[in-house]
Amino acid sequence: MNVVITGAAGFLGRMLARSLLTRGRLVDRHGSLSAIDKLLLFDQQAGERLSDPRVRTVTGSVGESQSVERLISDEIDSVFHLAAVVSAEAESDFDKGMVVNLSGTLNLLQACRRLSHPPRVVFTSSVAAFGGELPSPVRDDTATTPQSSYGTQKVVGELLVNDYSRKGFIDGRALRLPTICVRPGPANKAASGFASGIIREPIDGVTAVCPVAAETLMWLMSPATAIANLVHAHELPPAAFGHQRCLNLQGLTLSVGDMVAALRSVCGDETADRVAWRRDPSVEAVVSTWPGRFESARARELGFVADKDFESIIRAYLESMESINGVRLD
Amino acid sequence: MNVVITGAAGFLGRMLARSLLTRGRLVDRHGSLSAIDKLLLFDQQAGERLSDPRVRTVTGSVGESQSVERLISDEIDSVFHLAAVVSAEAESDFDKGMVVNLSGTLNLLQACRRLSHPPRVVFTSSVAAFGGELPSPVRDDTATTPQSSYGTQKVVGELLVNDYSRKGFIDGRALRLPTICVRPGPANKAASGFASGIIREPIDGVTAVCPVAAETLMWLMSPATAIANLVHAHELPPAAFGHQRCLNLQGLTLSVGDMVAALRSVCGDETADRVAWRRDPSVEAVVSTWPGRFESARARELGFVADKDFESIIRAYLESMESINGVRLD
Repeated sequence: MNVVITGAAGFLGRMLARSLLTRGRLVDRHGSLSAIDKLLLFDQQAGERLSDPRVRTVTGSVGESQSVERLISDEIDSVFHLAAVVSAEAESDFDKGMVVNLSGTLNLLQACRRLSHPPRVVFTSSVAAFGGELPSPVRDDTATTPQSSYGTQKVVGELLVNDYSRKGFIDGRALRLPTICVRPGPANKAASGFASGIIREPIDGVTAVCPVAAETLMWLMSPATAIANLVHAHELPPAAFGHQRCLNLQGLTLSVGDMVAALRSVCGDETADRVAWRRDPSVEAVVSTWPGRFESARARELGFVADKDFESIIRAYLESMESINGVRLD
Repeated sequence: MNVVITGAAGFLGRMLARSLLTRGRLVDRHGSLSAIDKLLLFDQQAGERLSDPRVRTVTGSVGESQSVERLISDEIDSVFHLAAVVSAEAESDFDKGMVVNLSGTLNLLQACRRLSHPPRVVFTSSVAAFGGELPSPVRDDTATTPQSSYGTQKVVGELLVNDYSRKGFIDGRALRLPTICVRPGPANKAASGFASGIIREPIDGVTAVCPVAAETLMWLMSPATAIANLVHAHELPPAAFGHQRCLNLQGLTLSVGDMVAALRSVCGDETADRVAWRRDPSVEAVVSTWPGRFESARARELGFVADKDFESIIRAYLESMESINGVRLD
């Protein structure tokens, strides 16, 4: 079978590509495990080279319908649609967010619809689907109330994935991802980027600014758990989803203060003391609208996985860094 | 001030145009009542001629961005966006629904965004925003769960009206309209069209087929009440809406059987016996997903109006027909 990843040069896209190549197989549209023959990695820039004969690198933007139509040829069985302009950038550059997040998703769905068999499409939505005054915890049937352009565009994507699935144009699945933490490498333009920064940078020996109050609740998931859940979403039969193709994953709920306390317990005082507290109203304005507490019964029933605790997430991050460049635990 | 109505040749569009011309004034962006200088009636065909010096008729489709950009010039203060492909047609002609209902709304909002001052935009959403398993009654914070392409496209419109308002690009207001009953004239392509047909056609001496079971609940509003509420939505200050620009109106909840019973009590047995019961699965598939019971606290608090009972709706319809062509009550 042939699989596309959009946003493949991004952090999650790269991880997902490596995971799929290692795994080697996915459930096909007949419900059988089938070898991945081709993995098409689509992004604006080529990203890292993966020396695997199954990999094809395709450059282009999901915002350009012709690029997407060329990408989604009739040989495609499955699409992981990760390409997106992140929260703070979609807020500061409204047009860019609309082109990539809204028109891009529409371009992809329209291209999928033209295939002779409906492909499986896994779409990543976000905690930013929710905002403002919300019940606590947020449940599976809580109304989406986005308070950012990013969140709005993601909810539009969810609605379209549902309707294209109902019409039989695709076999869609959409996951509302928690804030992914710990992201390695340089910060991206997500408003939630600090959540990784306040762990990653102190470990790297650098001072990190936390731009929100210590009591701010975050809803978190490790990169490895997110990838496992994206693959699980693909593997479930269509009947597991029914009419509602979108669900909230099971994130960890933690205050930013407790995140730093976990860093202290795993890495020691010297590391944790590198977090500087300096509130930034522009970041708080976005992050404070997101809910922290979820009761994700549906994800649990469908076998999606959750992280054990934040200390384990930090340790897993340290191990992954160690395997890359020999950073040691304190 | 200068006002645009899209979908102006439709039934509600024509009624709204006459109502605005009679009223003569609307609240402007400074909160003052201001005379309507120009009323631009936009639709694909010209529709009836209104011999009023304030009226300009403009032909075009909201699905064509250039037509919309020409329509929404910098002299525009307010837009009533009624243009839409109705439910059954959006279901049978998916592309047409997407072009008019989704791209059309986006074209309109983008054109409004380019104006030097944010216009007031009143958008009509629908009961079709809801479907499937729902709490009863549906409340103001019930999650939208459209089960039709029409409903999906309307909810996307609501989300965009909210986000464009939050960004200050427009001052938007969106109303989820109940099924409008009694519509005069020939049936349109809405799945709910029978709700008017089973009243209008028996009164005209014609047999009408009711394609759903007698116990099917409908959520109804008279045309005059819908128009009063569209105008009220325009007149309220932006602060009345806050972040959530969309609300459920206060419809009447009635089974189809009770609708025919009301027809019997107002017009007699001979008229009511012209309703033939013959279920049509394609209509039931759409209509049965819509909720019947609502608790619309927010609309009530904001001063939106409701019909008294269905008998009054039938009597008002008879009076309007009488004033047009002399039809008499039985």
